[in-house]
Amino acid sequence: MNGIFEATELLSILFVIAIIAEAMTAALAAGKREMDWVGVCVLGCVTALGGGSIRDVLLGHYPLTWVEHPSYLLLTGGGALFTIAVARYMHKLRNIFLFLDAVGLVVFTVIGCNVAIRLDLPVVIIVASGMITGCAGGVLRDILCNSIPLLFRSELYATVSVFTGLLYIGGLSLNLNHDLVMAVSMALGLALRLLALRYSWSMPKFVYGGNIH
Amino acid sequence: MNGIFEATELLSILFVIAIIAEAMTAALAAGKREMDWVGVCVLGCVTALGGGSIRDVLLGHYPLTWVEHPSYLLLTGGGALFTIAVARYMHKLRNIFLFLDAVGLVVFTVIGCNVAIRLDLPVVIIVASGMITGCAGGVLRDILCNSIPLLFRSELYATVSVFTGLLYIGGLSLNLNHDLVMAVSMALGLALRLLALRYSWSMPKFVYGGNIH
Amino acid sequence: MNGIFEATELLSILFVIAIIAEAMTAALAAGKREMDWVGVCVLGCVTALGGGSIRDVLLGHYPLTWVEHPSYLLLTGGGALFTIAVARYMHKLRNIFLFLDAVGLVVFTVIGCNVAIRLDLPVVIIVASGMITGCAGGVLRDILCNSIPLLFRSELYATVSVFTGLLYIGGLSLNLNHDLVMAVSMALGLALRLLALRYSWSMPKFVYGGNIH
Repeated sequence: MNGIFEATELLSILFVIAIIAEAMTAALAAGKREMDWVGVCVLGCVTALGGGSIRDVLLGHYPLTWVEHPSYLLLTGGGALFTIAVARYMHKLRNIFLFLDAVGLVVFTVIGCNVAIRLDLPVVIIVASGMITGCAGGVLRDILCNSIPLLFRSELYATVSVFTGLLYIGGLSLNLNHDLVMAVSMALGLALRLLALRYSWSMPKFVYGGNIH
Repeated sequence: MNGIFEATELLSILFVIAIIAEAMTAALAAGKREMDWVGVCVLGCVTALGGGSIRDVLLGHYPLTWVEHPSYLLLTGGGALFTIAVARYMHKLRNIFLFLDAVGLVVFTVIGCNVAIRLDLPVVIIVASGMITGCAGGVLRDILCNSIPLLFRSELYATVSVFTGLLYIGGLSLNLNHDLVMAVSMALGLALRLLALRYSWSMPKFVYGGNIH
Repeated sequence: MNGIFEATELLSILFVIAIIAEAMTAALAAGKREMDWVGVCVLGCVTALGGGSIRDVLLGHYPLTWVEHPSYLLLTGGGALFTIAVARYMHKLRNIFLFLDAVGLVVFTVIGCNVAIRLDLPVVIIVASGMITGCAGGVLRDILCNSIPLLFRSELYATVSVFTGLLYIGGLSLNLNHDLVMAVSMALGLALRLLALRYSWSMPKFVYGGNIH
């Protein structure tokens, strides 16, 4: 129990780092679209906290994380605004942000799986819950920036989330030590994401030229 | 009671056929946008199950259909992926898919009305619940494809849903036999939709050229 | 207590006027995009009632306003359709609609704050609840019209909402008379919005030209 508690605490710390990193990257996307400071702030909050919010709304899991911890709203909004001041230096930190984004993806995934596990939901929904938590924030960001979600056209983002979720659930179903399962599934998911980034791995695209209706 | 049960069973079967058909048509829309396999899969699930999900979230009707029946997620995601393999043959089945889409519209509408009826909601909300169930999935699909929702510019899609819902509620309020009312309202709604498709009926457009703000 | 009741009644009347005005302005946006009558109607309802709906869904505050008061759905949908008939005269009423939109912003904000106050939520969430109620409907309208939300690029819309919310909460926390606090915070918020419109005040934009990922 002590072990689980410590691991959960580490997960919380990683979660906070990850939402701030997500908010800062989203702020850059807002800058690309020449949004004003309010837009930067809102886009940061929505991107960082939107995935978990959609998950909780779909599962009826109240109160939402940021309603229970309003400081998350301040941290992500503040992080987004802070980005305006340091944007000129951020391309130098590009790799750090890509790394933090990848950490966020696996952390969000495991947290999302845990929500569904605590609600006693079936395996398919646990994996879906992890994927929604990990990926839906970025989808909201792209909708608000008026572009087709990157998730639908890019690297193995959602795949990494499903992979991490399946490892995590698989490990737990074998009654292995919780912390070990969590650490290993997150590490392997992170590795897959970093390899996908490094070697530009991507899903095959489906190109259809006919008429739909 | 036996009759209602059988009719409900038939409705369930039609529902499953309809969500798979919706997912497959959505997959073609994803192919038009050159999405990758993940995008195809997610767009299929969201289009097929999104209308009912939005309805349930707005009405606070938990658990959502696909959370209770995770197989729907697999069927729609699988149907969307299957589309990639058979896309080249689908234009030959164009009429079948248009027909299944029309069946889906009236089936979703009646199911949506029933959810609101069971929650004892007023008539306006019952009709709205039917229309949201029938139409909102397509709106989500179009938002994710970054285009103005077809619903807002095209054939009598929403109109058919409202028409079917009104017939269904009207018939029930007359204390007519439930199965008969359901069958007749669905048949008439289906006929209206097919006629609209055949003769390209459409709502008049509102064209405004002035300044808004 | 009597005073609060009367103020609440006034707020309800202002709310109804504001949602009709919002629906009518949204209808013009629909006309700009050449939507059909269904699109006009849906866009009007979603814009006018969407902010409160998103707030209620995020806070788990059921039933939603329009589910409890279906007449709001008829009023906003009807207002939107009515706009089609009177659109040619509306540019003459441009200032009235801008004024009603500004009234709506502060009314929605105070109503949103009150929902969060009644749920005993922390100050940050009360302000966020007011801002979501005041602003999210317009964001939904812009997403459905396939453009980047105006909120993210324009005048002090969200700022006015946050300002009004902070004044309102600040006044209440000082145990001042509720009606007075409400009237003063709404009047000052309204004044800020009208000044921002008159002098084209805006938030500074964040322009970022580098690569994001």
